[in-house]
Amino acid sequence: MSTTRSRGRPRNTQADAEILDAALALLRDGGYRALALDEVARRAGTAKSSIYRRWPSKAALAAEIIRRVMPPLDDAADHSATLRAFDELLNGPLGNVVASLIGEAQESVETRAIVVSLIAPFRERFDEVGAEQLMGAILFRRLLG
Amino acid sequence: MSTTRSRGRPRNTQADAEILDAALALLRDGGYRALALDEVARRAGTAKSSIYRRWPSKAALAAEIIRRVMPPLDDAADHSATLRAFDELLNGPLGNVVASLIGEAQESVETRAIVVSLIAPFRERFDEVGAEQLMGAILFRRLLG
Repeated sequence: MSTTRSRGRPRNTQADAEILDAALALLRDGGYRALALDEVARRAGTAKSSIYRRWPSKAALAAEIIRRVMPPLDDAADHSATLRAFDELLNGPLGNVVASLIGEAQESVETRAIVVSLIAPFRERFDEVGAEQLMGAILFRRLLG
Repeated sequence: MSTTRSRGRPRNTQADAEILDAALALLRDGGYRALALDEVARRAGTAKSSIYRRWPSKAALAAEIIRRVMPPLDDAADHSATLRAFDELLNGPLGNVVASLIGEAQESVETRAIVVSLIAPFRERFDEVGAEQLMGAILFRRLLG
């Protein structure tokens, strides 16, 4: 059993990497709309069920990719740096994907939880008013600018 | 010709009112998702094509309803009153519909234009920074709170 598992693990890790690579390419080329799991599975050479086993939804898969390319947050006391990183999250190469997720979050509680968790590392560096006003300004510009 | 038109106009106005009433009831009961134009047409006793003739999309119809129930904006210099009205727009009885429209606006340029026009009366009362920070704080809380 343990032999099977230790053999299987690298293969799974490799499959995960191929799924993430394929999904990232689709997101970069066509945004969140382009993230078709059939196409991810085809490109990654895996079954769609393997994707769902690891990521329960398209939103979960997209969020993991965004988290991996997210700018690092080092100095918690540097609010300007945090805001620049949040701006990069919303307006960087996958910013349109983040906006789509926020959009979907208005209709789906699952996606809302995913998005709230995605921005939690930024939000927790501010007090409530700071988060709402400073991050809200960036959000407002992204969504309604 | 002009006789036909003057007879026709009240009937159209009446039909419009029935469409708006039916749509408002659906939005209040089930949010933006519940706004099915087949059902609006059925309840208003009209054809779906009559709805589309007047409002080119569900978003346009929803925005007109929101605009009609929107709190009045009187004193342009009273920024607190403007923010309270914006808060009411996002968190009042149809706030979830506004949030859904903002969500849809991330995928549709038509809906984006509708939403931007819906919030324009609020936004133009602030300078850019004020709009983004103050209205952004309310938006942030609504969408990600």
